[in-house]
Amino acid sequence: MTVRFAVLGAGRIGQVHATAIASVPGATLVAVAEPFAEAAKAMQDAHGCDIRSIDEIAASDDVDAVVICTPTDTHADLIEQFAKAGKAVFSEKPIDLSLARVRDCLKVVESENATLMVGFNRRFDPDFMAVKSAIDAGQVGDVEMVTVISRDPGAPPADYIKRSGGIFRDMTIHDFDVARWLLGEEVDSVVATGAVLTDPEIGKLGDFDSVNVILQTASGKQAIITNSRRAAYGYDQRIEVLGSAGMVAARNQHEANIDMAGADGFSRPPLLNFFMTRYTAAYANEIAAFVAAVADGAATPTTGHDGMMALALADAAVKSVEEGRAVKLSEVLG
Amino acid sequence: MTVRFAVLGAGRIGQVHATAIASVPGATLVAVAEPFAEAAKAMQDAHGCDIRSIDEIAASDDVDAVVICTPTDTHADLIEQFAKAGKAVFSEKPIDLSLARVRDCLKVVESENATLMVGFNRRFDPDFMAVKSAIDAGQVGDVEMVTVISRDPGAPPADYIKRSGGIFRDMTIHDFDVARWLLGEEVDSVVATGAVLTDPEIGKLGDFDSVNVILQTASGKQAIITNSRRAAYGYDQRIEVLGSAGMVAARNQHEANIDMAGADGFSRPPLLNFFMTRYTAAYANEIAAFVAAVADGAATPTTGHDGMMALALADAAVKSVEEGRAVKLSEVLG
Amino acid sequence: MTVRFAVLGAGRIGQVHATAIASVPGATLVAVAEPFAEAAKAMQDAHGCDIRSIDEIAASDDVDAVVICTPTDTHADLIEQFAKAGKAVFSEKPIDLSLARVRDCLKVVESENATLMVGFNRRFDPDFMAVKSAIDAGQVGDVEMVTVISRDPGAPPADYIKRSGGIFRDMTIHDFDVARWLLGEEVDSVVATGAVLTDPEIGKLGDFDSVNVILQTASGKQAIITNSRRAAYGYDQRIEVLGSAGMVAARNQHEANIDMAGADGFSRPPLLNFFMTRYTAAYANEIAAFVAAVADGAATPTTGHDGMMALALADAAVKSVEEGRAVKLSEVLG
Amino acid sequence: MTVRFAVLGAGRIGQVHATAIASVPGATLVAVAEPFAEAAKAMQDAHGCDIRSIDEIAASDDVDAVVICTPTDTHADLIEQFAKAGKAVFSEKPIDLSLARVRDCLKVVESENATLMVGFNRRFDPDFMAVKSAIDAGQVGDVEMVTVISRDPGAPPADYIKRSGGIFRDMTIHDFDVARWLLGEEVDSVVATGAVLTDPEIGKLGDFDSVNVILQTASGKQAIITNSRRAAYGYDQRIEVLGSAGMVAARNQHEANIDMAGADGFSRPPLLNFFMTRYTAAYANEIAAFVAAVADGAATPTTGHDGMMALALADAAVKSVEEGRAVKLSEVLG
Repeated sequence: MTVRFAVLGAGRIGQVHATAIASVPGATLVAVAEPFAEAAKAMQDAHGCDIRSIDEIAASDDVDAVVICTPTDTHADLIEQFAKAGKAVFSEKPIDLSLARVRDCLKVVESENATLMVGFNRRFDPDFMAVKSAIDAGQVGDVEMVTVISRDPGAPPADYIKRSGGIFRDMTIHDFDVARWLLGEEVDSVVATGAVLTDPEIGKLGDFDSVNVILQTASGKQAIITNSRRAAYGYDQRIEVLGSAGMVAARNQHEANIDMAGADGFSRPPLLNFFMTRYTAAYANEIAAFVAAVADGAATPTTGHDGMMALALADAAVKSVEEGRAVKLSEVLG
Repeated sequence: MTVRFAVLGAGRIGQVHATAIASVPGATLVAVAEPFAEAAKAMQDAHGCDIRSIDEIAASDDVDAVVICTPTDTHADLIEQFAKAGKAVFSEKPIDLSLARVRDCLKVVESENATLMVGFNRRFDPDFMAVKSAIDAGQVGDVEMVTVISRDPGAPPADYIKRSGGIFRDMTIHDFDVARWLLGEEVDSVVATGAVLTDPEIGKLGDFDSVNVILQTASGKQAIITNSRRAAYGYDQRIEVLGSAGMVAARNQHEANIDMAGADGFSRPPLLNFFMTRYTAAYANEIAAFVAAVADGAATPTTGHDGMMALALADAAVKSVEEGRAVKLSEVLG
Repeated sequence: MTVRFAVLGAGRIGQVHATAIASVPGATLVAVAEPFAEAAKAMQDAHGCDIRSIDEIAASDDVDAVVICTPTDTHADLIEQFAKAGKAVFSEKPIDLSLARVRDCLKVVESENATLMVGFNRRFDPDFMAVKSAIDAGQVGDVEMVTVISRDPGAPPADYIKRSGGIFRDMTIHDFDVARWLLGEEVDSVVATGAVLTDPEIGKLGDFDSVNVILQTASGKQAIITNSRRAAYGYDQRIEVLGSAGMVAARNQHEANIDMAGADGFSRPPLLNFFMTRYTAAYANEIAAFVAAVADGAATPTTGHDGMMALALADAAVKSVEEGRAVKLSEVLG
Repeated sequence: MTVRFAVLGAGRIGQVHATAIASVPGATLVAVAEPFAEAAKAMQDAHGCDIRSIDEIAASDDVDAVVICTPTDTHADLIEQFAKAGKAVFSEKPIDLSLARVRDCLKVVESENATLMVGFNRRFDPDFMAVKSAIDAGQVGDVEMVTVISRDPGAPPADYIKRSGGIFRDMTIHDFDVARWLLGEEVDSVVATGAVLTDPEIGKLGDFDSVNVILQTASGKQAIITNSRRAAYGYDQRIEVLGSAGMVAARNQHEANIDMAGADGFSRPPLLNFFMTRYTAAYANEIAAFVAAVADGAATPTTGHDGMMALALADAAVKSVEEGRAVKLSEVLG
C-alpha cells in the first residue's frame, strides 16, 4: 500500500516533511494546504502535488494521512478535524500549549479511534537510535542516569519567543521526550533553574535562555537536561546514559569528519549547525515510521500521550523555577 | 534541462547508479539494458524504466546519457559505441586493463568530441572533498606527502580476482587516482612491494593481497599507499595530506557515532563495512556532478585521461614489484 | 629555601603526599607521625624520615610545614595546634564536617596569621588547569554554564561511608570546589536530588549513591554536578564550561592512548581507575604550589575559605534534598 | 642493589638521562664527565655528583655503569673502553655511522662479556609498549603491516645535519628499530625514496628532509615508514599495526587533553613538541630497564645487535634511493 499524504502548512518544517515523504518508499505527496500562495506554489513545483484548502483535504478520498505543520495554536483543532475525517494524523509538537486543551484533544482522538503520531524527531536520529538499541540490548545494564546536553546556535526572533510558550515548552520539550524515552520510566518529580544570560530581551519577554532540569522517577533514576539558547560553536546535541553495567553516549555531528593541524594546534570543522541538516536522517526515519504504522494499522512509535507527558514536564519545570521547589508531576497532571 | 539516462548492466554497481540517478534532481532513468531478465525486471520495478537492448539504447532519441556498469572487458567497446552515438558517457573504471586499448578508446572519444566521465567515486565523498577543499584553500600550504590507507574487509571471490587484472589494477587503482588528485602533480616514478599474507589462494592466482606503493613527482612530493585485501575491523578508508603549513586527514566512518564504555574499556561501533554504505553520498554526488557537466556542456570532473593515468600507475607498480626497482611512469606510458 | 615537611598520618593519602614531597624541588620530608608502627616504619624506609609524635613535630625546629592526613574528625584540632605552633599547614579536606567548627578553626588560623592550604587536588590537574587557563585567557568569553561529571568506580566500604558525612560532604565536595573555581562567582542557591541505585546498604546508612546538583549564582550562571558512586567503566572525571564565546572541556584519562580494532568494532583501554594514578600529577603540582606559597610567604591557591564554602554547598545540597526545595547558601552560612 | 652511574657528556641528552637516573629507584648518579666546565658544574649542582675525567671514571670502583651521551664519533671507542673496564654500558644510538666499526665494537663487547644497551627510547614509551603488549597478547593476530609516521617539528641546524650521517641514519634509525620490534621478524629488503621539500640547504648538504621507506621480511610482512624533518603542527609520532585479526595504533600526545569549541569549529592543543617532553616517561622507563638488567645480570632489552641492525637498514635505505631499486639487507650486512 502507498500512503497518500497531504501537508498542512508549507513553511520550513512543512518542506522538511514534504521532502521526507518524497524520499520514503510507500509514501506519496498528494496535496498541500497553505494560505500563502507563493509558498503553496513552491511546494507544488517541488513535489508535483495539488494545492487544496484544509477542508477540501479533509473531504479528499485520495488522502490517507495529513502532516500538520501549521502554527501551534491550530494543532489541536486540526488534529480533531482530521481524526473525525478518518485520516491518520502526524502533528508537529506541541499539540497545544495548554495541558487541558491537549487532554480534550486526545479524548477526541481516542473516541474516533484515530491514528495520531506526534513529531519528536530526535527519537529517529540514527545515533540516538543506536544509543537506545544499546540500552535495550542490555549493554549498559539498568539505566540510572541520563544526561541530555542540548544547545541551540542562537535564539529565535523575539516574535517567535513570544508565542512559543517559553523555553521549557518550546526547546526543552524535545529533551523531556528524549529523557522519558531513555529513562524507560515515568518521571515523578522535577526541579529546574533558569536564567537570562545571552540576551536581556529574552528576559523582558518573561522567558529564560539558560536552564537546567533534573527529573527523577519513583525508583530514583535521574535525568539531567542542560539547555542554552546560544552556543557560539553551533548546534550541540548530546545524550549520555549511565547504567549499572556501563555507559553509552552519542557524539555531536560535524560538517565533515576531518582533522586539521597547524601551528596553532589541531582542529575539526564546526557542528552541523541547523536542525534541518543535523536531523535530516531523523526526519526521513520519522516519516518512514509513521508510514509503516499507517500501512500496518499498527501503533505509532510516538503518541499523543508522549506529547502530553512532555508538555506536563515543561509545565512542572516552569512551576519549579517559579516556586523554587521540586514539583511532582502529579501536581500538573492533576 | 533533465538528463535522461540509460544504465547498461543491472548488477550491484548498476543498482547503485540507478538509485543515485533517482535521487539527483535533473536526472531521470529511462531505460536499462541487462542480459539477465530477472535483474532487468528488478530494476524496472524499482525505477519504472524501460528494458531495452544496448543497440536500442544507442538509437534512442529519449536517452541523453549512459552509465556503463557492464563487465570490464566491454567498457572500451561500449564507450566507443555510445561516443559515436552522440550520448554522454559515464563509465565505471577501468576503461580497459590494457593501456594500449585505453589509449585507442580515448582517441575515439576525442575525435567524436564526446563527453566521458570515469567513475572514481572517492573524489566525491564529502569528507574527502573537505580534505581537497582545505588543500585548495591553502590550509596546509604546499602539499608534500600524501598518505592513503585503504583496506578491504575481505578479499573478493577467486573468480573475480582472476578477471580483475590484479590488486594494483583493481583495488589500488582508486588510491592511485586519489593520490594524483591530492598531490596536484603528475607522478614521475613508482616503487611498490607486494606479498600474499591473507590467503594462499590469491598467490596461486598470481596476485597479491598486501601491497605498498610510494609515488614520487618530479618536484619530490610523495604519496604512500598501503592496501590490504583483509582488515578484520572493516572497510578502512583514510587519507592524510602533509603540507608545508600543516596537515589534513579524513576519518573513517563508523556505523553510528556513539561511544560505549564498560568494565573492559571504551568502544565504538564497527566501520561502515561495504562500499555501498560507506560511499552512498559519494555515488550520489558523483552522478550529480556528471549531470551538471552534461547539462552545462562542461568538462567532467573525472576524465578518460584520469582513467588512463591511474591504470598507468598500476602498470608501473606491477613492473616495480616484478623487477625490484623504481619504475618511471614514462616507461609504461611510452 | 627548602621547605621541611612533616606528614601527619601515613595512610594512603599520606603516602601520596610524601611521594609528592620527595618529587618536588625545594621540599624535603623530615618526619612522620603515625600511630600504627608498621605504617610509620614503611614511610621511614621509603623516604628516610624520622618518626615523631604529633606534639614532638609541633615543637620541632627543623619542621616548617605539616601535611595533615589524619582522620577527618582530627583536622580542625590539628590545624589549630600547628597554626599556633607557627607551622605552615596543608590539610586534607574537609576541615571538619561541622560548618560551625570550621568557622571557629578558621578564626584561630586568622588570629595566628597562619598559612593554611586545603587539599583540593583537582584544581592542580594539568588538564583542568588548561581548562581554567582557557577561561582566564577569555577563550570562551563570559562563563555561563559549568558541567561536572564525576563518578567513582565503586563505593567505599560501609565503615567509611558511616564516618564520611554523606556523599555530598565526602565526594561532591570536590566538585563543589571545582564548580566554584570555574564559575568565578559565589553560588547563591542550590537544588539537589539524590537516590540509592547501586547498593541498598548505602541507603540503610542514610546516604545516597546517585546525586545531581544545580548551583546558581546571583547573576544566573549555573553549574550542574552529576555524581555516582559506581561507574562500571571506571573513574570518570570530566568538566565542561560553556561561555558566551565557546566551550572548553577536559577529557577523561585512559590507561594508554591507543586504539584497537577488531571484528567487534573499535576499542580503547579503560580509564585510569584510581585517584592516585588519575591525579598523580595533580598531587605533585598541589604540593609544589604549597611549597611555593610557603617559600614566598604568598597566599595559598586554595584556602580555608575555599574549604568552608565547599562544605557550605554540601550542607545546602543535603537540605535541598531533604526539603525538596532550592536552598539559599545564606541559609546555611547564617 | 643500587646501580651507581656516571654520565659521559652533560649536554641535552645527558641531562635527560641524569634526571631519569635521579627518578629511578635503585639508581644513583655518582659522577659526570664533561669537557665544558660550566655544563659539568650545572649537572653537579642539579644532582650532587662528582666531576671526573673519563679515564678516572673508567678506573672508579664506585661506578657500576656508564651512560654514553658524547658525540657520535666517540661512542664506539667509549663502549670498548668501558666494556674493558668492566662497567655496564648504556650508549646513545648510533654506536657508529660505519657498520664495519659497529661490528668491530660489538666483537669487543662480546669478548669482554660486557653488558651493553643501546638507547632506543621509543620502545619504552608507555603507549608504544601498550601497542607491543596488545600484539604479544595476540589481540591483532599475526602481524602483517606496520605503519610508522614520524615527523619532526623542524630540521636541526646545518652543522648537526653535516655530522648526522643523513636523515636515514639520524632520524629514521629510530623508526627502523621500532619497525623491527613490531614486525617481530628481520627485514629482508628495503625500498626507499627521498626528496628535499622543506629547505634547499638540506639538499646542498647532500641530505633529504622527506623520505619514505618500505621494509619487507622474507615472509612478506611489510613496514612503511614516513618521515619529514618539518611538521608545522609539531612532533608527530604515530605507529599502527595491522594483523590478521585486527589493528592497534598509538595516538599522538597533546599538550593537554582538552577540547575547545568556538565559532570557527573545534580545536585541541598542539602536540607535545619536543622529544624531551614527548618521551619523558620513555626515558625514565628506559633507564629503569637498564638498571633492572644490570641489577639482575640479565640481558638488556635493546642490544648492540639492535643498534647494528637499525644502522644496516639505514645503509640499505641510502643505497635504495641512490640506485633506485630494492636493496637486500644481506647486501649491506655482507
